[in-house]
Amino acid sequence: MAVRTPDPDPADDGEERDPLSPPFATGQNGPSTNPGWLSEVELAEARRRLPMLYVEALPVRTDGMGAVTQVGILLRATPLGEMTRTLVSGRVRYGETVRDALFRHVENDLGPMAFPLLPPQPTPFTVAEYFPLPGVSAFHDDRQHAVSLAYVVPVTGTCEPRQDALEVTWLSPQEAASDALSDEMEGGRGTLIRLALASVGALR
Amino acid sequence: MAVRTPDPDPADDGEERDPLSPPFATGQNGPSTNPGWLSEVELAEARRRLPMLYVEALPVRTDGMGAVTQVGILLRATPLGEMTRTLVSGRVRYGETVRDALFRHVENDLGPMAFPLLPPQPTPFTVAEYFPLPGVSAFHDDRQHAVSLAYVVPVTGTCEPRQDALEVTWLSPQEAASDALSDEMEGGRGTLIRLALASVGALR
Amino acid sequence: MAVRTPDPDPADDGEERDPLSPPFATGQNGPSTNPGWLSEVELAEARRRLPMLYVEALPVRTDGMGAVTQVGILLRATPLGEMTRTLVSGRVRYGETVRDALFRHVENDLGPMAFPLLPPQPTPFTVAEYFPLPGVSAFHDDRQHAVSLAYVVPVTGTCEPRQDALEVTWLSPQEAASDALSDEMEGGRGTLIRLALASVGALR
Amino acid sequence: MAVRTPDPDPADDGEERDPLSPPFATGQNGPSTNPGWLSEVELAEARRRLPMLYVEALPVRTDGMGAVTQVGILLRATPLGEMTRTLVSGRVRYGETVRDALFRHVENDLGPMAFPLLPPQPTPFTVAEYFPLPGVSAFHDDRQHAVSLAYVVPVTGTCEPRQDALEVTWLSPQEAASDALSDEMEGGRGTLIRLALASVGALR
Repeated sequence: MAVRTPDPDPADDGEERDPLSPPFATGQNGPSTNPGWLSEVELAEARRRLPMLYVEALPVRTDGMGAVTQVGILLRATPLGEMTRTLVSGRVRYGETVRDALFRHVENDLGPMAFPLLPPQPTPFTVAEYFPLPGVSAFHDDRQHAVSLAYVVPVTGTCEPRQDALEVTWLSPQEAASDALSDEMEGGRGTLIRLALASVGALR
Repeated sequence: MAVRTPDPDPADDGEERDPLSPPFATGQNGPSTNPGWLSEVELAEARRRLPMLYVEALPVRTDGMGAVTQVGILLRATPLGEMTRTLVSGRVRYGETVRDALFRHVENDLGPMAFPLLPPQPTPFTVAEYFPLPGVSAFHDDRQHAVSLAYVVPVTGTCEPRQDALEVTWLSPQEAASDALSDEMEGGRGTLIRLALASVGALR
Repeated sequence: MAVRTPDPDPADDGEERDPLSPPFATGQNGPSTNPGWLSEVELAEARRRLPMLYVEALPVRTDGMGAVTQVGILLRATPLGEMTRTLVSGRVRYGETVRDALFRHVENDLGPMAFPLLPPQPTPFTVAEYFPLPGVSAFHDDRQHAVSLAYVVPVTGTCEPRQDALEVTWLSPQEAASDALSDEMEGGRGTLIRLALASVGALR
Repeated sequence: MAVRTPDPDPADDGEERDPLSPPFATGQNGPSTNPGWLSEVELAEARRRLPMLYVEALPVRTDGMGAVTQVGILLRATPLGEMTRTLVSGRVRYGETVRDALFRHVENDLGPMAFPLLPPQPTPFTVAEYFPLPGVSAFHDDRQHAVSLAYVVPVTGTCEPRQDALEVTWLSPQEAASDALSDEMEGGRGTLIRLALASVGALR
């Protein structure tokens, strides 16, 4: 299957055009004076020269005792029209906290009614390293070198996928850890799901 | 100040008399046949010969992004009438999961309307070892050798302390990490609070 | 296959007869006066009434950069003469630190020349809960309710299995995570190996 | 005191001119064709527009049981000649694994005879976020937005500081956690030391 980038959607480019969130957004009135602004060309250039910082989230449902009962996997259409499965994923912007980036991408992908419970801890369950060349690590991304802080995020509301995420499929931990699902995940993220499940004691 | 045990209250003895939760409670009809039952004498005896397994929780309030804003400290009256500050704490029963024990003690100490969000992860932020002799570790308990799995637990409802917990005081992370509070905490739990705050990135 | 206890060997009973390590061992001159001493009958009794605290270790070999390259699995003969695979495992004694217990059991099972590098962190990679009834958790032990703090422990020397451990087999992470090995592991420890591998980023 | 960047030394700029390590370094024969190459101007530009990925290490000495006994703090001369205290710290290069970056910077700062034991786990003890504006987080860096994966790294050999690190001072955990030391640390790294100590159970 096609292995594409953690954040291949137009939103990623689009977001660069948005005014940045405070305290870094004060006073800019155009691309040339906003230090956080990157044109598409510049972003593409940076991607070939610097590791890009990402956050990823595995949305889960928990029972009343906090144990994970279900795992949410996104169905996504690539720009080429291929269907692929992935996690919530996106870049950390200049001036943005990791926590804010995580919240923003969860909301972008799952909608405003997902009501995620971001973990109090800043430490990810793993650090996933995506390299352009396959085989350097378990993860790869032919577009860039990305380093991703990955979190398990319980959601308590209703998920309404947005942007290019077409659907959220809720699976049991056992289904989510299966080889069948792993083969459908892009960029090696089947491994990421297993590491996530292991971190919550839900991998067998 | 008096340094007493993590679970010195009558409830701990009382709980031993309760029927155990399934699947271990089926069919017992008296102390002599219930394998999970320990008389007060037997429990006291075991405490001098085996490390006792405990769970502890630092209740916290979080903002909408999951960051810790407040920390809940219990004010407790010892059997001798002394006032002391402590955390949610209690023993894991025979046949009980760590998660169930954590939930039970949070509910016991904070009331049924606290609506705690137990973490999906089974791993504690630290393992606190209480020894009868001070100085072996940062923690001590003159009654027993206890090994405690300690968790940060966000609560979303209203805390109504029960049993011998008189009050929950909500403090800022900064206040909770202060030497002043640490001096009031029993058994070295001022250190435990700091480790908890560190785990959520709220210690300066 | 037979599913037996984390520490079914005579050594476990035998260790109870040893003088305890300081500071709790001073001055005892017999079973009746040593508060940490448990007769076999008493230990058996306690096992039916209290959760027992264990430590477990997955021995690993690492490359010069700290990445796990191999995993050590013990081949063990049960009292009934069956061969079974397991991890380093054993009980925490009264008065003993978790760290001391971990070191003692690694040395007991792997010999004095294993030169283990115990992790600086006190937090285990998971808390494995063994129940006498299968199905309560991923782990079970028909002899007792045991709660085990599980660690990954790099070893740098030569492992010479002792006591009832017959052999240490070194496997690649991939072999160690296989279903084939998992089926040979006692008490659900195939799951424990996978959680260990996940914690070091070596699970695919 | 002056608060400067995690990696203000000439080595950081210099390193960009080095051929990159495989597999990304094949075939380049000049700045214009090496995709990982950044001129000083370009790097400065990227720093104003993208979060930069860093690794940091707190070197420690451990006893035979793995417990932390000492903490190594670097004394460093800033380009302006000021003396400041800091940790091992540096940027992750394009195409470089986090583990390789960590090893490289430990070796750069502590010399080739330090013999560090990198942790098997990829997860940092915390994620430290440095912002150009003070107050957004506990950490700041007036030169850039940097996100740092921070690790505790036991060293077993002899540390011979190199480059602009003048000296390694070994302190007890208690000294390292003191307000006095914290005031001397640049960019809020006194907090980072405390979080590191908490992660190894060595903070009181």
